[in-house]
Amino acid sequence: MSDPLPKITIDAAPADPAPPPAASKPAIPTVSPATAAFLEPYLPPPHANAYAKPLGVTQDRAPDAAQTRPFVTLTYATSLDSQLALSPGAQTALSGPLSKSLTHYLRSRHDGVLIGTGTAIADDPGLNCRTEGVGGYNNQEELDDPTKATTIAGLDDDEDEGLESDPLPGQPRPIILDPNRRWHFTRESRMFQIVREGKGKAPIILTRASSRQGSGEAERWRILCEHGGLFMCPREEMKDKSKRMKSGSRWSWKQILEFLYKEAGIQSLMIEGGGNVINDLLGRKENLELIDSVVLTIAPVYLGKGGVNVCPDGKQVEAIKVPAVNFKHVNWNVLGR
Amino acid sequence: MSDPLPKITIDAAPADPAPPPAASKPAIPTVSPATAAFLEPYLPPPHANAYAKPLGVTQDRAPDAAQTRPFVTLTYATSLDSQLALSPGAQTALSGPLSKSLTHYLRSRHDGVLIGTGTAIADDPGLNCRTEGVGGYNNQEELDDPTKATTIAGLDDDEDEGLESDPLPGQPRPIILDPNRRWHFTRESRMFQIVREGKGKAPIILTRASSRQGSGEAERWRILCEHGGLFMCPREEMKDKSKRMKSGSRWSWKQILEFLYKEAGIQSLMIEGGGNVINDLLGRKENLELIDSVVLTIAPVYLGKGGVNVCPDGKQVEAIKVPAVNFKHVNWNVLGR
Repeated sequence: MSDPLPKITIDAAPADPAPPPAASKPAIPTVSPATAAFLEPYLPPPHANAYAKPLGVTQDRAPDAAQTRPFVTLTYATSLDSQLALSPGAQTALSGPLSKSLTHYLRSRHDGVLIGTGTAIADDPGLNCRTEGVGGYNNQEELDDPTKATTIAGLDDDEDEGLESDPLPGQPRPIILDPNRRWHFTRESRMFQIVREGKGKAPIILTRASSRQGSGEAERWRILCEHGGLFMCPREEMKDKSKRMKSGSRWSWKQILEFLYKEAGIQSLMIEGGGNVINDLLGRKENLELIDSVVLTIAPVYLGKGGVNVCPDGKQVEAIKVPAVNFKHVNWNVLGR
Repeated sequence: MSDPLPKITIDAAPADPAPPPAASKPAIPTVSPATAAFLEPYLPPPHANAYAKPLGVTQDRAPDAAQTRPFVTLTYATSLDSQLALSPGAQTALSGPLSKSLTHYLRSRHDGVLIGTGTAIADDPGLNCRTEGVGGYNNQEELDDPTKATTIAGLDDDEDEGLESDPLPGQPRPIILDPNRRWHFTRESRMFQIVREGKGKAPIILTRASSRQGSGEAERWRILCEHGGLFMCPREEMKDKSKRMKSGSRWSWKQILEFLYKEAGIQSLMIEGGGNVINDLLGRKENLELIDSVVLTIAPVYLGKGGVNVCPDGKQVEAIKVPAVNFKHVNWNVLGR
């Protein structure tokens, strides 16, 4: 009988340990077929050459000549007292696992996801889609061609390759409405960590050409370009105060949407918040007309006074107050409790 | 062949025409069996000798010695922006036919229906139950003994006959929380019209013994007594401002509920609004503990700024804001669109 094999021990501590990987959040289960079927009439049409699974929208369609703006889905979660957060700037979890799945499913079905500056500052959001099967999360295309998964999916790449390729199928383009460049992001902001991990696209930051550039602006330009993101400046309206958006921009939503459609290839846009953006969209007739669909989640809690309230301006017809928004084609679905 | 019968004409105008009958609203269909089953876990237990149909609560149970207050159901309809009305005092239809059926079904299952002064003034409500089959609306007992249907169901009758009889089975007792006697009702107020029609019970008006009595007070006493209603004065708390209810009363809800249970035989109470009452109940821990059930209907509209908002006071735990109300055992049901 031969000697037993010697026990081998390996000292695994390398001389220069690699930094721990950025906390990469786990994938999120996709919505149930019943929820997907329920949502379908409220979603943009899947693109002609869409990602084969029900998830995901690719950017490989030529823009429709008759169309001038993206399909717009407004979506957010509120409490029973119509609040997004306990107080301005406070991250407030209003969604259970099922409504989180819903949000990520919706992201997979839109070319872009837009938020306002306030939300970017308060939440440091990733704005990617973590649904299993979408680019960066065990997508079949990546498994067939593993080099794709590690591509940093910047706009430069897209421009080089034309509209034909989407290195991260199903991942939406984050779009930050930041006219006055108040979002002072860093390399460690979650959106850029995610790009470096190959799990999401770099953001487009919509800004005013005339915005004052605070300290650190050159560094932010560098970070953004390095990850493949862009500052973009829609043409500004005349400086007529009456046309200003509440958030302080001089753009109209129509102008922003047409710009995103024409200049950034965004054919479907999910608008996720926050309070200023939502109230501005819901509170003006000309803005409401730009919204194709609203997906609203209501959590069974009251946050109480002092939160971030969704409540559009009141509306009058012949000096009589009438409901500000009266939704058509309403459907309800129960997600969890 | 005989002559044809002469045409007879009758001049039908009487010398002293009777006044047109008070606009008696039609009966409301009962809720579907599915909705009734959905609601059941949130309702007070049906009384031992209850009205035989699923509808209706009689007052023929002896009060439970261990219990000191009624089963309390808080119920109201809001818009997506958590508003009860477009502006203070404006009646705002937020309910479709199905949620109207729900409200009336709930009324049939409670001994009393409570509202605040503001709602009584703004809405001139009937507060009866118009569901087919309930007392005053083709109830089987009345059909067997038609004299019952025309009894004016005042408290005096109840007292004369003891707790054994309910001349209007399934009809709740309207209860108006009017500490300062601001509700200047008349004989033509809908609640009294309904009593005269034999379609509802006369109200209990909870008031302060010390309330200032405005002009016309003697006449209101007369109207109330004639219809079998009552002013009732719960014992007042010490005049400690910190214990005052927001509505200006010096009662606590605990005191009001115990009073209604012991002195008025109200074993189950539905609280229907309005804003001050709801916010006061939801906004204080000691009041929330008195609520057994909340039935909330949400209409798919935004009313817009300037309405009557349901939003309780914020709540803090160790200087950190937390949700004011976090409901347990939540269930959702879709009524209509």
